[in-house]
Amino acid sequence: MSKLTHFNEQGRAQMVDISEKKETVRTAIALSSIKINQDIYDEIINGKNKKGDVLAVAQIAGIMAAKQTANIIPMCHPISLTGVNISFDWNVDEEASIYEITIQAEVKTKGSTGVEMEALTAVSATALTIYDMCKAVDKNMIIGPTMLMNKTGGKNGEFLR
Amino acid sequence: MSKLTHFNEQGRAQMVDISEKKETVRTAIALSSIKINQDIYDEIINGKNKKGDVLAVAQIAGIMAAKQTANIIPMCHPISLTGVNISFDWNVDEEASIYEITIQAEVKTKGSTGVEMEALTAVSATALTIYDMCKAVDKNMIIGPTMLMNKTGGKNGEFLR
Amino acid sequence: MSKLTHFNEQGRAQMVDISEKKETVRTAIALSSIKINQDIYDEIINGKNKKGDVLAVAQIAGIMAAKQTANIIPMCHPISLTGVNISFDWNVDEEASIYEITIQAEVKTKGSTGVEMEALTAVSATALTIYDMCKAVDKNMIIGPTMLMNKTGGKNGEFLR
Amino acid sequence: MSKLTHFNEQGRAQMVDISEKKETVRTAIALSSIKINQDIYDEIINGKNKKGDVLAVAQIAGIMAAKQTANIIPMCHPISLTGVNISFDWNVDEEASIYEITIQAEVKTKGSTGVEMEALTAVSATALTIYDMCKAVDKNMIIGPTMLMNKTGGKNGEFLR
Amino acid sequence: MSKLTHFNEQGRAQMVDISEKKETVRTAIALSSIKINQDIYDEIINGKNKKGDVLAVAQIAGIMAAKQTANIIPMCHPISLTGVNISFDWNVDEEASIYEITIQAEVKTKGSTGVEMEALTAVSATALTIYDMCKAVDKNMIIGPTMLMNKTGGKNGEFLR
Amino acid sequence: MSKLTHFNEQGRAQMVDISEKKETVRTAIALSSIKINQDIYDEIINGKNKKGDVLAVAQIAGIMAAKQTANIIPMCHPISLTGVNISFDWNVDEEASIYEITIQAEVKTKGSTGVEMEALTAVSATALTIYDMCKAVDKNMIIGPTMLMNKTGGKNGEFLR
Repeated sequence: MSKLTHFNEQGRAQMVDISEKKETVRTAIALSSIKINQDIYDEIINGKNKKGDVLAVAQIAGIMAAKQTANIIPMCHPISLTGVNISFDWNVDEEASIYEITIQAEVKTKGSTGVEMEALTAVSATALTIYDMCKAVDKNMIIGPTMLMNKTGGKNGEFLR
Repeated sequence: MSKLTHFNEQGRAQMVDISEKKETVRTAIALSSIKINQDIYDEIINGKNKKGDVLAVAQIAGIMAAKQTANIIPMCHPISLTGVNISFDWNVDEEASIYEITIQAEVKTKGSTGVEMEALTAVSATALTIYDMCKAVDKNMIIGPTMLMNKTGGKNGEFLR
Repeated sequence: MSKLTHFNEQGRAQMVDISEKKETVRTAIALSSIKINQDIYDEIINGKNKKGDVLAVAQIAGIMAAKQTANIIPMCHPISLTGVNISFDWNVDEEASIYEITIQAEVKTKGSTGVEMEALTAVSATALTIYDMCKAVDKNMIIGPTMLMNKTGGKNGEFLR
Repeated sequence: MSKLTHFNEQGRAQMVDISEKKETVRTAIALSSIKINQDIYDEIINGKNKKGDVLAVAQIAGIMAAKQTANIIPMCHPISLTGVNISFDWNVDEEASIYEITIQAEVKTKGSTGVEMEALTAVSATALTIYDMCKAVDKNMIIGPTMLMNKTGGKNGEFLR
Repeated sequence: MSKLTHFNEQGRAQMVDISEKKETVRTAIALSSIKINQDIYDEIINGKNKKGDVLAVAQIAGIMAAKQTANIIPMCHPISLTGVNISFDWNVDEEASIYEITIQAEVKTKGSTGVEMEALTAVSATALTIYDMCKAVDKNMIIGPTMLMNKTGGKNGEFLR
Repeated sequence: MSKLTHFNEQGRAQMVDISEKKETVRTAIALSSIKINQDIYDEIINGKNKKGDVLAVAQIAGIMAAKQTANIIPMCHPISLTGVNISFDWNVDEEASIYEITIQAEVKTKGSTGVEMEALTAVSATALTIYDMCKAVDKNMIIGPTMLMNKTGGKNGEFLR
């Protein structure tokens, strides 16, 4: 028997029945990153204190994408998110010409299923938006790896990478 | 002066004016991948000839996400896509326990701006959907690296990684 | 070889490439209907001259759904519609207890592909909305048959049922 | 007094107040069908074991449309669906040249109002997508009749056609 | 310390965590208005008893926009609205050439956060739609002032302008 | 005969046929404003140089809403916007306790119909988002007046308030 729960008796995809699952507070944390070059790094850092910096746009995109997850991922349940928080870190080694932005999204709900996909979608949209804002300077940016870091709540308990 | 074109005179984000750019056929190819474990590999391969296999769902998600790009990426222009094609490849080395699906999206338009973001969004949504369909088996899957491979059309000409 | 154009070389669904197709004015007319009972018929007719009649809501739903077609039908191209017109007719035979509303949608575009799906989606959403507005009175309403009546423009020329 | 609950004191459409209704598990089953010709029948059947068959695309469209119901039907309440399952049956009589696919959607929620519209929207979008995938072969396909088969949960209890 | 709750520890926007807030019935009433000229006034009044009057379209737009609030306002939580009611009033003084439509929206939910933004979005979309329907006659219409009139439910209790 | 073009022969709303209108560059500028109190003024000004200031979020909301106009305003044609630029001005008179933000949106397209509604929708969403970000401090903010300032392109030529 298949361990993939997303398929019905006809072998077709379904939105899994969660009617009997308990409503609890659930959280998920996902991580992504984007490797940029020095030119873009300088632009973002110099623009950091200005009104419309790149990361501000990217982070709003991430929050809005988290709310759109069920419209992007076909078998995802629509979920009433109760909180989304996106933050950034820099991994820079100028000598090695490494300029990397790490993106973390923490998503919360009080519902019957987890929010892993919402957190993963949030960091993906954030990274894609950084790409979009900077692609006029350089198109060689690389997004990812993108992964789930942590998950709490629900019957199966905690996941910690 | 900033090389980032997405900012206006007040230093705030804007959707860049492309009214004067020529309408030409433009294409973009993006690549992503997802690393899975052997259990998921077996499930996908065994399900390969069945009606509702994982990759079929993921690929439809990618095509629909390409059409939603301008709603996910804040400064993206709405574009009338004229074609989207998503295909998969396997990178498997059973001895090294490597099971990886590579995802390629080719997007076309006849318009005034490129479709890099549409191709990147398509492969991202495809990878996220594979994650969603298989996460009941294992949550350690890793998405990416995600990158632009090729771009044609428009004033700036071709990009080839 | 398959005559179904919506599949790529890997045998998977794709959004067909229409980059080389000519932009011409294209129209499509679709038809649907909904069979209601006498109670609902009386309500709609009596409400006909009032501000918020059932058919006004249904018809707006149809026009808005036409614009959403590419988000509902996975392989549909996003199209800039240039006109949508929805009209109603009654097919009533009180002796035979037949009360039927026929719904017609005419959709236009100036683009590279036809608008059959937009017209069919419009009449479907219109019929579904009539059902929604009246289901408190009777849930036995029957929607359809729904079909394409006419199509003009494009290389393949006219379709007339 | 009007039995149509969707109108307010000014005689205009409203989204009915369900704040006081109880949250219970509710289900709805809807049915639709699409009549195709032999050519399309052969294409679908021959493609049945392939990766991207017509019905797989159509069924994903149905599930995603169920989640969009409140954006398509103006007075529908937004509902957190807890399960959607779409299945197909064949009604074929080769001698009489009858080739018909019947589409069933079962939708579940744990909420304050029923999911009839979600089930009806799901089967409608599924049928429309089959039409879209096959219209290059024949445009004479006929969708419907579309109807509610069963409804459970809520104050008014069960509906069974 | 900032009193603006929408910012996280990095000083960036966030969707505020409401996981611990109680689910209660919450309501909000917002008001807007649109100043039109006599020509448009005559058109709307004369069309009042007809099937597709301007205000019917506008009011449906308002209800549908209320459901889209979390997709329009970046930091808004997605909320399952339990009721939306939009009504109109006239403020006319023919001698002073004042023709004004006032728009009121009352929105309800049973949830963890208020619906002020949903009510304000509803009246805004209603006013914008009146503008759209009448702009062929005169483009000088003025929308607003738009404001919150009343709010009940939740920890902070009632707001009454 | 009605001067309102949005109605068909049955007296119902329609999306006006623009198939024969010429594709030209069209622009529209709309204006809105929001009156805030001194507390909020201090918060916004103090936060001005920080990464996630209120106006940055609001302005992104405005740009994204411009792209959603055809989904919010029922009879609006879907339009491929070629540029959106939102800027802010302050109207402050501390002695008179007047603190007002004026919002201007300039929208461009190369298409068959004007972008007045896109500009008006952009400033409305921007103002609504400022309200959302600051409503924890004070709910008495007032949005508007909102109006069209300028329009160029198309058969009817320029509009200038």
